Amino acid sequence: MITRRFLFGFFALILALGNLHRSANVTYADSDGRDEMLRKMDERADHFGQISRRIWEFAEVGYKERQSSDLLKSELRAAGFQLQENVADIPTAFVASYGAGSPVIGILGEFDALPGLSQDSIPEKKALAAGAPGHGCGHNLFGAASAFAAITAKDYLIEKKLPGAIRFYGTPAEEGGAGKVYMARAGVFNDCDVILAWHPGDANGASLKSSLANISAKFRFHGQAAHAAGAPDKGRSSLDAVMLMAHAVDMMREHVPQTTRLHYVITNGGGAPNVVPDYAEIYMYARHPNMPTLDGIWARVVKCAEAGALATETRMEMELVASVYNELPNEPLANLIDKNLRRVGGVKYTNEEQAFAEKLRQSFALDGALSLGSQEQVQQMEGGVSSGSTDVSDVSWIVPTSEFRAATYVPGTPGHSWQSTACTGFSIGRKGMVVAAKTLALSAVDLMQDTKLIEAARADFNKRRAGHEYHSRIPAQQKPPLNYRDK
Amino acid sequence: MITRRFLFGFFALILALGNLHRSANVTYADSDGRDEMLRKMDERADHFGQISRRIWEFAEVGYKERQSSDLLKSELRAAGFQLQENVADIPTAFVASYGAGSPVIGILGEFDALPGLSQDSIPEKKALAAGAPGHGCGHNLFGAASAFAAITAKDYLIEKKLPGAIRFYGTPAEEGGAGKVYMARAGVFNDCDVILAWHPGDANGASLKSSLANISAKFRFHGQAAHAAGAPDKGRSSLDAVMLMAHAVDMMREHVPQTTRLHYVITNGGGAPNVVPDYAEIYMYARHPNMPTLDGIWARVVKCAEAGALATETRMEMELVASVYNELPNEPLANLIDKNLRRVGGVKYTNEEQAFAEKLRQSFALDGALSLGSQEQVQQMEGGVSSGSTDVSDVSWIVPTSEFRAATYVPGTPGHSWQSTACTGFSIGRKGMVVAAKTLALSAVDLMQDTKLIEAARADFNKRRAGHEYHSRIPAQQKPPLNYRDK
Amino acid sequence: MITRRFLFGFFALILALGNLHRSANVTYADSDGRDEMLRKMDERADHFGQISRRIWEFAEVGYKERQSSDLLKSELRAAGFQLQENVADIPTAFVASYGAGSPVIGILGEFDALPGLSQDSIPEKKALAAGAPGHGCGHNLFGAASAFAAITAKDYLIEKKLPGAIRFYGTPAEEGGAGKVYMARAGVFNDCDVILAWHPGDANGASLKSSLANISAKFRFHGQAAHAAGAPDKGRSSLDAVMLMAHAVDMMREHVPQTTRLHYVITNGGGAPNVVPDYAEIYMYARHPNMPTLDGIWARVVKCAEAGALATETRMEMELVASVYNELPNEPLANLIDKNLRRVGGVKYTNEEQAFAEKLRQSFALDGALSLGSQEQVQQMEGGVSSGSTDVSDVSWIVPTSEFRAATYVPGTPGHSWQSTACTGFSIGRKGMVVAAKTLALSAVDLMQDTKLIEAARADFNKRRAGHEYHSRIPAQQKPPLNYRDK
Amino acid sequence: MITRRFLFGFFALILALGNLHRSANVTYADSDGRDEMLRKMDERADHFGQISRRIWEFAEVGYKERQSSDLLKSELRAAGFQLQENVADIPTAFVASYGAGSPVIGILGEFDALPGLSQDSIPEKKALAAGAPGHGCGHNLFGAASAFAAITAKDYLIEKKLPGAIRFYGTPAEEGGAGKVYMARAGVFNDCDVILAWHPGDANGASLKSSLANISAKFRFHGQAAHAAGAPDKGRSSLDAVMLMAHAVDMMREHVPQTTRLHYVITNGGGAPNVVPDYAEIYMYARHPNMPTLDGIWARVVKCAEAGALATETRMEMELVASVYNELPNEPLANLIDKNLRRVGGVKYTNEEQAFAEKLRQSFALDGALSLGSQEQVQQMEGGVSSGSTDVSDVSWIVPTSEFRAATYVPGTPGHSWQSTACTGFSIGRKGMVVAAKTLALSAVDLMQDTKLIEAARADFNKRRAGHEYHSRIPAQQKPPLNYRDK
Repeated sequence: MITRRFLFGFFALILALGNLHRSANVTYADSDGRDEMLRKMDERADHFGQISRRIWEFAEVGYKERQSSDLLKSELRAAGFQLQENVADIPTAFVASYGAGSPVIGILGEFDALPGLSQDSIPEKKALAAGAPGHGCGHNLFGAASAFAAITAKDYLIEKKLPGAIRFYGTPAEEGGAGKVYMARAGVFNDCDVILAWHPGDANGASLKSSLANISAKFRFHGQAAHAAGAPDKGRSSLDAVMLMAHAVDMMREHVPQTTRLHYVITNGGGAPNVVPDYAEIYMYARHPNMPTLDGIWARVVKCAEAGALATETRMEMELVASVYNELPNEPLANLIDKNLRRVGGVKYTNEEQAFAEKLRQSFALDGALSLGSQEQVQQMEGGVSSGSTDVSDVSWIVPTSEFRAATYVPGTPGHSWQSTACTGFSIGRKGMVVAAKTLALSAVDLMQDTKLIEAARADFNKRRAGHEYHSRIPAQQKPPLNYRDK
Repeated sequence: MITRRFLFGFFALILALGNLHRSANVTYADSDGRDEMLRKMDERADHFGQISRRIWEFAEVGYKERQSSDLLKSELRAAGFQLQENVADIPTAFVASYGAGSPVIGILGEFDALPGLSQDSIPEKKALAAGAPGHGCGHNLFGAASAFAAITAKDYLIEKKLPGAIRFYGTPAEEGGAGKVYMARAGVFNDCDVILAWHPGDANGASLKSSLANISAKFRFHGQAAHAAGAPDKGRSSLDAVMLMAHAVDMMREHVPQTTRLHYVITNGGGAPNVVPDYAEIYMYARHPNMPTLDGIWARVVKCAEAGALATETRMEMELVASVYNELPNEPLANLIDKNLRRVGGVKYTNEEQAFAEKLRQSFALDGALSLGSQEQVQQMEGGVSSGSTDVSDVSWIVPTSEFRAATYVPGTPGHSWQSTACTGFSIGRKGMVVAAKTLALSAVDLMQDTKLIEAARADFNKRRAGHEYHSRIPAQQKPPLNYRDK
Repeated sequence: MITRRFLFGFFALILALGNLHRSANVTYADSDGRDEMLRKMDERADHFGQISRRIWEFAEVGYKERQSSDLLKSELRAAGFQLQENVADIPTAFVASYGAGSPVIGILGEFDALPGLSQDSIPEKKALAAGAPGHGCGHNLFGAASAFAAITAKDYLIEKKLPGAIRFYGTPAEEGGAGKVYMARAGVFNDCDVILAWHPGDANGASLKSSLANISAKFRFHGQAAHAAGAPDKGRSSLDAVMLMAHAVDMMREHVPQTTRLHYVITNGGGAPNVVPDYAEIYMYARHPNMPTLDGIWARVVKCAEAGALATETRMEMELVASVYNELPNEPLANLIDKNLRRVGGVKYTNEEQAFAEKLRQSFALDGALSLGSQEQVQQMEGGVSSGSTDVSDVSWIVPTSEFRAATYVPGTPGHSWQSTACTGFSIGRKGMVVAAKTLALSAVDLMQDTKLIEAARADFNKRRAGHEYHSRIPAQQKPPLNYRDK
Repeated sequence: MITRRFLFGFFALILALGNLHRSANVTYADSDGRDEMLRKMDERADHFGQISRRIWEFAEVGYKERQSSDLLKSELRAAGFQLQENVADIPTAFVASYGAGSPVIGILGEFDALPGLSQDSIPEKKALAAGAPGHGCGHNLFGAASAFAAITAKDYLIEKKLPGAIRFYGTPAEEGGAGKVYMARAGVFNDCDVILAWHPGDANGASLKSSLANISAKFRFHGQAAHAAGAPDKGRSSLDAVMLMAHAVDMMREHVPQTTRLHYVITNGGGAPNVVPDYAEIYMYARHPNMPTLDGIWARVVKCAEAGALATETRMEMELVASVYNELPNEPLANLIDKNLRRVGGVKYTNEEQAFAEKLRQSFALDGALSLGSQEQVQQMEGGVSSGSTDVSDVSWIVPTSEFRAATYVPGTPGHSWQSTACTGFSIGRKGMVVAAKTLALSAVDLMQDTKLIEAARADFNKRRAGHEYHSRIPAQQKPPLNYRDK
């Protein structure tokens, strides 16, 4: 028998979850004008819904979100926010501020679309423009709801004559472009006390989850072209290099911790079959719940690339596309959000929406999915590690940050799909966005009014970050990859 | 941001561990002659220690354990046990029984060595015979301690005039030969009420762990030989087929649950380099914590093999070498063992043994290892899934079974190493074996005297097995691979 | 057509074949108005040069040559030819005929450009439009010279009142689209007595070479998409299938005759790295000097593709893109062409052209290249097997056919390069095209006037084809891949 | 020596080389006692046949040919030869010399067997000892015939009172051990004027063929062992490195000249499947008709190995096993041999031998094989490049050397097969060996008596070697791999 001392190492992370649900027992904060605030939000919901719809129609990919960014900026400027534009040399990144002094509460807003997901807001597959981008991750709602919340909180600040500042961060290119990492490098988050964020989803819920740190790069190989029938011995194939690297990475899977994720596509596999390819490119992601561990894994991925070049007499160059940290959860903030989310409640469908939802659910596997109706509830807070990665994580290592999700998709809808794109352009998405905006606004004003909450968030942040130092794996001299979405 | 609803799926298994350690608070059973029994065991410890040493010196690999099996049989026969030999057509498998009626308490004993691990019982690397087998998994102690316990329990049975029967199962070829699966098929465990087992380790502890189900096979490819310089186009390379299959399996790693394990060696990679290999062989293991899931994975491994043959115009044949289940833990039995193990206590080293241990610990990485001295304690019971596989698991699906470990190796010693081989031939190993024998004997007599314990074990067994049916993946017509250790 | 200057190196050894050079000793045919014909051609050279330049500027890829085809058609129609358009359901394929009765002499004309080879007509690398197509194989000259020759021969036919017909075949998509194979299937070559063709090159010379039979296909794999970090075990990667197939083909190289050529590019290697690719495509060529041998090799390539799908649980579909035969040379026709080519003579450069040539030759390796000045000579006829493939070959199995080359590129210029594109848009290319047109016209009228030449060509054709039957490997029901150049 | 009957298929085209067959017209040299010499050889044929049979029974592999070497030495010593033993630190290498002064005529003799080819001297497959070595390349005959010829020539030398010396070179380990390369390095061939050799085959014939230069090495990879289920991430697999190197080499096949040969077997593919292999080995051959070209190819093979190590974090070490040159043919010597071989004539079978031959020919494919009866003829001399490699080649770069073959196998018998082993132990083999011995003896005495022949051989040698310098690719410090046949 083989020694039994090995445990799949990962279980330990989940054990401290005992009292996650304590928040459910917390007494709701007294209204102090919050009911009125929420009522006014209902009045303005259509306006911000239309903003989300216009961004959905713009469907601009990472770093190209000119119209989307401009629309949000004009809305915030009109509401009296001061604008810092072209942050970190990114044309579509901006910070909108109102107020001064302490505390400083930031709210994140994203607005980039995904390539190839164009889809009408109907429950059957139909692209608006074949191959065009679409909002399959609902960032049209994300940006609009966050702006809605920032403006609402600002109004409350004025009304209550509270000290402190509200910030809206217009953060481009979350999808693979790591916009926030460059904004973080520019220091725009440094003086914040707390950052709030949310994300479209198929359910409502606060979160104590971490996420996967992620490093991604394009490895480009340069060989020697030759006529593939006439003089293949004169050629040195860059595609051979790509394939050898990929094979090496595939074998490496056995020899990394099982929670690692390595995945790639071949973005250039040669030109014409009758020419030995002198250029080929592979686009590689590596992820792990822990950044220093990921560093070691990534160093080995690079060796695989070097080996590909060595064996094939080609030349390799690597462009680091993005790198984000694993997310640092924050328990006091998550509890606060959970409380407010429960106060706001979930989403109720009209008959028309119910029909849309039923139809849509016929188009994907329901195996393990939340049931229809669950959009009306708020889920229990979850810990563990999400399988995704986000540049919100980098912010979470600088400022106490918490993110939650609201049910903007029909329960069970997979992310990054035509179905999620359909939802985020439809009234169902806009209803979920209002849940998010209200929860953000309530939490922001709670934090403005109760600095103990901020202290608790800071203490939890310090504890979790202890012994680690944040520094992005993107080289200091690297500029934002403003054209990373170009072929 | 990517949808967060994915959790690394595995954590759930560990949650029911809340009250594992309850046993520590249980009042020790009153002696009722047990102290005397343990005292007599001390007297006979040397005798059984010598038996373990002789088996260590025999160092016979799976299904070839003639002398080892004979030695244990003669000991048990001399003690009055009835012997059923050549069980399941395996020359070295046997059942030794004493008594009749109910209950029937079985104790498992293994005695096969591992190839290539020959080593002297000294704390530095030195083979007794280069390349020869050695007891790197301590089965020499396993068999001897279990026989010691069975004989002791039999004596107690006689002394106390208790009803019921004691069984010793002589189970060959645990290391890759799955001997118990063939014995199970022959029905020899069916009328047992409880099975007890232990395993050599670097610590003392009862266990609630499961293990990995395992399927292994040799895939053989038959091609067409040809002169590799003169007529390679006439050849069809079986090595190409092996390599293609391996590549396919390496890519498949990404597309199986992360707790899957796939590993292989190439056991025949061709003859002379100047001949296109017409024969090649790869030996593949697949493991997963759940047998039905493993079935699906295995079916895909077979497809990879078929693809290797298809692409290379070779012919594939598969020989299933072994298949074992994931282990079914048993909480009442584990609690009973934990209680008795704590009564017996751990292992105290002499000065000489301490020096041996200190020297040995310089030869391996101590990173994460138990500290020296821990051999004196009993560890907390552990749940989860071990990374190993064992044919004890198949028994655990037929009869309530529990296994524990005793500190026969210096703390930190890796299994299947020259270091573990050194320990199992040394006094340190023999001391740990006495701990095991005493714990087995105590537990056996407890079970003989308290049928409620048996009922509780059965109830737990029924609950865990509910909805599943045991049937070995080894084809019914397949005979024990008595020569699987031959090249 | 792919450049023909590559020789399998070993074949050079066998050049001393029989009486290839006999032609050098043949007495030139008496003029009978041919001198006058050539003089008139000099007058019209500029006109057809401009046509070639316009087609060079159109730079239309296979099956999309609308403007190029229209331009040639209008020229031939104006000259009195009867047009059969949309031949074989190909919008740009046509047959232009003049005259009736016997003999029927056909001249082939191509006019498709190559993707990605846009280049100005200057001796340094400069695309006219980055990434756009360009005439790197000189088919702009091919079509224009052949039309020039057909019109000239027609005029001679009228003048001399000769019986018989002249045909110009407008044959699209030589580069990978196998246009002539579909035209052949439509039967348009069946009643021809002889077919003449030429090809742009870096030297002047008649040819007895064969070429490589070629089968090419796109293999498409359909898998199952999944989030590559969240649920990779749910995914079935079509890219895995592509890579496994490619690995199998790479191993197969050892086990095919050494004159085989297998080459591929990955035309779709997945979408985004964070999604398990559910679609991937590989574009594969296989070539061999003998079609039945190639059939066997191709069957094995298909098995590699099937194995890729089998191992990865994906679905494969194959689209046969093209298949052309090995070329059947014709000795009497080659001798005739050699004679006429020597009568016409090579190309003389002006000072400006000399400077262009010298500059251009600095941009490529001269190792083994013909020397500057060699464009003025006519090379010895060559036998052996070219390393290229062409759909002219299919015609050569139906009608006695011969092809020669004229020096339209600076000596040493590699085919399918920016350098060859520069030449074919420059005066150097147009001068070489006149050499070709004159040689074609002379040969056509020789054949019209001397039916013994046709009989000899037919006899040689019958002898070489004996024991074989022509049938294209493109399935009878397959339509021309009019969109094969679309991504 | 590796079977020489394979021709690169294309070379057949060039067989009509100039004046190869001139020899057929040469007037046979006057007898001058040669008839008597041949008569005496018939008397001693049985004696040397028995020597060949004993070596066939010894069946000792490369560098282990103790008994075989001793037997030949004792025979030569008894005949009056002076012995230089343990040449080049090889226990079984020796030089036996008789006479002094000029000229010095050397005759090569080999005597090593091949692993795994044990076979009885009967026409059906039956090993004498399963897995044991056998004389599948007929070196038992090679050594015995050459010794027979050397002793015969020595007797003639004495009888005719001729000046000069006769040498017999006892050359071990031709099969992969490159024994002659180490002997050459020790300088033992330097003062020879001419070297004669032969090789067992399925036909009789002189030769103008070259052979393939060959470099071979064992690449060993050292990784990190780990439990393959418990801690695969701690392991670094040396088998991964082997497989990656092999994949790289397989892709490289496309990018080397087509006459290159690359072939390998995996000689160690890991130990037990449940341990990540920390050791693996691949045995690689690379061949090409030209040594400097092979150098470049080999450098790339080494890069593939380095890449395998780099990507997998393992360590690579290379042991160069052997390296031999391409053979330098010698036309005057080949003509001399051809003349003498025709004088001696082929082999006539008895009825029993005919029955053996007919039966044996049923066991292999006759496709393309010489017909039964052809053993009685002498084949036309062949040029081109054989697909085999031999360490005779290295001698051929130092001294004018020529090798021929005699029909010791039944026509059509593949080399390195149980069938060739059966023949070389049977009377058929011994008859062919007498043909060889007589041809060697005749050629040796011709050379002793006619120094013009030696001058002509030297002139041809100088011309062919012009511009090249011989230096073995085996490092100067490398000792003979006396244990290369050990696992």
